[in-house]
Amino acid sequence: MTITITAFERSPDGGRGLARDTRVRWALEEVGQPYEVRLVSFRAMKEPAHLALHPFGQIPTYEEGDLALFETGAIILHIAQRHAGLLPDDANARARAITWMFAAVNTVEPPILELEAARLLEGDKPWHDERLPLVEDRVRNRLNQLSARLGDTDWLDGAFSAGDLMMVSVLLRLKSSGILDEYPNLAAYLVRGETRPAYKRAFAAQLAVNTGKPPTG
Amino acid sequence: MTITITAFERSPDGGRGLARDTRVRWALEEVGQPYEVRLVSFRAMKEPAHLALHPFGQIPTYEEGDLALFETGAIILHIAQRHAGLLPDDANARARAITWMFAAVNTVEPPILELEAARLLEGDKPWHDERLPLVEDRVRNRLNQLSARLGDTDWLDGAFSAGDLMMVSVLLRLKSSGILDEYPNLAAYLVRGETRPAYKRAFAAQLAVNTGKPPTG
Repeated sequence: MTITITAFERSPDGGRGLARDTRVRWALEEVGQPYEVRLVSFRAMKEPAHLALHPFGQIPTYEEGDLALFETGAIILHIAQRHAGLLPDDANARARAITWMFAAVNTVEPPILELEAARLLEGDKPWHDERLPLVEDRVRNRLNQLSARLGDTDWLDGAFSAGDLMMVSVLLRLKSSGILDEYPNLAAYLVRGETRPAYKRAFAAQLAVNTGKPPTG
Repeated sequence: MTITITAFERSPDGGRGLARDTRVRWALEEVGQPYEVRLVSFRAMKEPAHLALHPFGQIPTYEEGDLALFETGAIILHIAQRHAGLLPDDANARARAITWMFAAVNTVEPPILELEAARLLEGDKPWHDERLPLVEDRVRNRLNQLSARLGDTDWLDGAFSAGDLMMVSVLLRLKSSGILDEYPNLAAYLVRGETRPAYKRAFAAQLAVNTGKPPTG
């Protein structure tokens, strides 16, 4: 059955790979599953046809035969559970890898989203300059803990897993902030993620959409 | 094998059930699994023994034989996958229920956490009064969409599932804010969750810890 995902017709980040379809593309590339992409405009995302697929009017969605999913974490978990390559076989190791997926989206990402909101939605507010360091410190609080746990290992728990895919994707949002420079092991972890062939293919595919050039062009 | 979870020795909410161990207790009650609780102090949560279990120094954790997990969403998914009562049997319906778990923690909860941060961590800041309505509107943005999707159904997708358990738990954080009064169907959804016998047992158990009285006393 054909897998179809949705992505922004034009990503707000101009192709830096931060839109969440990149995470799903990456997962599909890791497991070697081909997929089709349906592009949606900002207007179409808030219309009934798309809201039926995604109640929060966002991308990505995932369709495969009768199945329709939204929410990046759930889509990636679904892919990882059905195809080899993103979760270990051992049941306990598998549960731990899934733990890191949730840690990425529920513990590490929220302060990062708050930092983005502070920059993008409150950049013109009188409190912006004084408040930003507080929000940055909430991000650092999580990164301190993550950095301590990662130590000098390559990935969070044994081999690369969907947990790393999600954590690297979350940390990529900090790339332009400079904060990651304070954590050499996390910066190196990010590079390990970005240099995976599957990530490179996913990145190139989303970039092609946003520049209008085919990925091999 | 005995299941052991961790919880606050004294919850910051004084027993209102908002600490995340309540979510795990609720899941274990729904599937009828007994469990033991190890209480940890704020100081102990930041010490090496607990950090080895939970790298972000939080509660709850979950131990069962050789398996040690952290992160509430992952713990509840693990429980739901191993015991009947929290996920439908049909594969597609199961994937959709898991989607709602992720939607709860990654789409609905982040603005609610931001609202809590605005109240608890920035209540004394000069920008507090002017900024609060902005943050509340980010919460409303999500609730508008969630309310539209729920409509007049009892649960988010067919029968009660781990997705509802997680969404109700996330919305409970808003209870004291008054915002939920603007959404009668979400307020009723919350009541449906809170009146489930399993939730009541979970709530009573955490309250007993925080009042020092046994749940049947």
